[in-house]
Amino acid sequence: MALYVNKYGGTSVGRIDRIQNVAEQVIKARQQGDDLVVVVSAMSGETNRLLALAHEIQEQPKPRELDVLLATGEQVTIALLAMALEEKGCPARSYTGAQAGIVTDAAHTKARVESIDCDVIRADLAAGRVVIVAGFQGVTEEGDITTLGRGGSDTTAVALAAALKADECRIYTDVDGVYTTDPRVEPRARRLKQITFEEMLEMASLGSKVLQIRSVEFAGKYNVPLRVLSSFEEGEGTLITYEAQDMEKALISGIAFNRDEAKLTLERVPDRPGIAHQILGPIADANIEVDMIVQNIAGDGATDFTFTVHRNDYKKAMDILQQIRQDLGAEGVTGDADIVKVSLVGVGMRSHAGIASTMFKALADDGINIRMISTSEIKISVVVDEKYLELAVRSLHEAFDLGKEP
Amino acid sequence: MALYVNKYGGTSVGRIDRIQNVAEQVIKARQQGDDLVVVVSAMSGETNRLLALAHEIQEQPKPRELDVLLATGEQVTIALLAMALEEKGCPARSYTGAQAGIVTDAAHTKARVESIDCDVIRADLAAGRVVIVAGFQGVTEEGDITTLGRGGSDTTAVALAAALKADECRIYTDVDGVYTTDPRVEPRARRLKQITFEEMLEMASLGSKVLQIRSVEFAGKYNVPLRVLSSFEEGEGTLITYEAQDMEKALISGIAFNRDEAKLTLERVPDRPGIAHQILGPIADANIEVDMIVQNIAGDGATDFTFTVHRNDYKKAMDILQQIRQDLGAEGVTGDADIVKVSLVGVGMRSHAGIASTMFKALADDGINIRMISTSEIKISVVVDEKYLELAVRSLHEAFDLGKEP
Repeated sequence: MALYVNKYGGTSVGRIDRIQNVAEQVIKARQQGDDLVVVVSAMSGETNRLLALAHEIQEQPKPRELDVLLATGEQVTIALLAMALEEKGCPARSYTGAQAGIVTDAAHTKARVESIDCDVIRADLAAGRVVIVAGFQGVTEEGDITTLGRGGSDTTAVALAAALKADECRIYTDVDGVYTTDPRVEPRARRLKQITFEEMLEMASLGSKVLQIRSVEFAGKYNVPLRVLSSFEEGEGTLITYEAQDMEKALISGIAFNRDEAKLTLERVPDRPGIAHQILGPIADANIEVDMIVQNIAGDGATDFTFTVHRNDYKKAMDILQQIRQDLGAEGVTGDADIVKVSLVGVGMRSHAGIASTMFKALADDGINIRMISTSEIKISVVVDEKYLELAVRSLHEAFDLGKEP
Repeated sequence: MALYVNKYGGTSVGRIDRIQNVAEQVIKARQQGDDLVVVVSAMSGETNRLLALAHEIQEQPKPRELDVLLATGEQVTIALLAMALEEKGCPARSYTGAQAGIVTDAAHTKARVESIDCDVIRADLAAGRVVIVAGFQGVTEEGDITTLGRGGSDTTAVALAAALKADECRIYTDVDGVYTTDPRVEPRARRLKQITFEEMLEMASLGSKVLQIRSVEFAGKYNVPLRVLSSFEEGEGTLITYEAQDMEKALISGIAFNRDEAKLTLERVPDRPGIAHQILGPIADANIEVDMIVQNIAGDGATDFTFTVHRNDYKKAMDILQQIRQDLGAEGVTGDADIVKVSLVGVGMRSHAGIASTMFKALADDGINIRMISTSEIKISVVVDEKYLELAVRSLHEAFDLGKEP
């Protein structure tokens, strides 16, 4: 007999008939003799409805009160799912975050889980009940309602799975797993049976936004096996594990990409200590997040300094560079908002040489010019012109044979 | 400096602009230097929306889960009102029933308040904040969310006023007070400046449904001065007090009526002990509530036994009487679903004779035939044909000079 924590997102519980479907899935899982804790989000659209009410009153609502308001969304879902289970003859009991003993810090609207008192949940499971917990929310030591930020229901599920030492945390969503790349770009993209937490973090932050990053970090930290599945189709989804369990694992897990990049270059900056900070300090002060950073030394005491930002921040970043250019003694400022980033991701590349050259050759063979390169332990990212995005993804998918089971 | 508990119903907070109006009223009251605790209902329509969702799933939803669901209605309002106050520069903090320490028994959907821990509220008031509490809800000792039944927000307000020893509990509603009778029937009806709890109970149960009866009983028990006011118009409303404070008070406070009555008579039942129970036992078993009961002894060992029920229960009650008629030895069963009850209410009548005769004379002068009479300490009720309702009310309003200030 195993213990599972199942999490269903807003789309999966967005209508009464879908809540009833979830109830049936839960009952089917129970019939296999397993214990179940179910975490649910607000019905899709509900959080936005509540936010709209708040914003009619205050442009920036008080975070404490916003949390009181938004927490009602999941509270509605837990009650309805409990009713649906009871109606089908399955004993169930619902708990808000506070009732489930999910204690967080007091950082309203983006609180972090500090501890979970699982006594109530364990007693219910022992009594043969399905336990339903409102995702996304908790309570401070002082009794104030908090929320964990958008997508926080994933975090709730993982935190509960860790606290209960569950056998698996299953995130049911509207995709049936993690793919080698976006199937809308490469139809031959294949669902991965498993992926490591580190790879998942790279895949998620690069655009395959299946799971909230924080929940993946959390799962990795507490070694909770995490599985992404579809709530609408049968299937085993993708298992996200701490360590690659198969030593014969493929070198490359997938290809992530990000359409929303823009790059900026300060040309021929004098190469002296502290220059990177002098450039990126004002950028950070303006709350602009920087993604890739590349610096090439020209050899004559001057350097080209290039970095990428979200395309929405391009103009603001460009203005800042124009302002600091003279102080820095740079010869010019250039930029390009029509670029994309394509990344190879795989823990396998740690121990295998030749990945980069295979990648660059594949792109060259298809006539794709690489504008920027950046590497880390488990990924290689290139920046290319936007028009080459699809071609680059397909070219790499083919070159590393990702369409085939390893 | 006084402490007031203000309660605003669903209509008063039914839209964002109305919530903002309430915020302005609260701020105005605060500017007079008083402390305020504000109790709010769910936005009008919200409870019905939630009930409809539940009933899509279960005909009879589990009461525990229904409470989890319905409690979200008030939780939305408290957050929005707190935001509206903060937006206008007034420090405020919202509390659910559980957070406000409102502990109830475990009778889900109709729980009773057992205790209130006011420490948190007192601390906030001392810190200069307006405290906003979700009406209608509480929490059991075990931490389960409960609700107090429809209209329970009034009870929350009165219970908080009692626990905090507030100077007054003010119920803001869509009428501006308690009237001598329904102004739609008698345009000369006058708003009462004050009324006793006992009179209010009779007026409320007889159709002037301004306040939830339980909250009036509660206020009487704990001697909380209760005031009914309009949330849309200025005015001092009606004060509901434990004792008539003015010895010169009018004999009669008002005229209540009930359109939904029906009467049934068992004719010439043998007059023997236990006969009333033999008749009303089966009626009670069928969950039919009986209002007036009148028995006249004819003198020859037989009696006519008459009672009134809600008009919706008329057919069911008639069927039962037909079934038991023979066993009881009654000669016949008659009934009338086209009757109404009109009642004079006033604590003054306790010590004054002649009220009844004035009443009966006024009705007789207008040619209204009295079909049934029943009296209690502070009211006299008559049953008349439905067509005479308006005439009877106006006739009595005139006879007791209720249009004039006493």
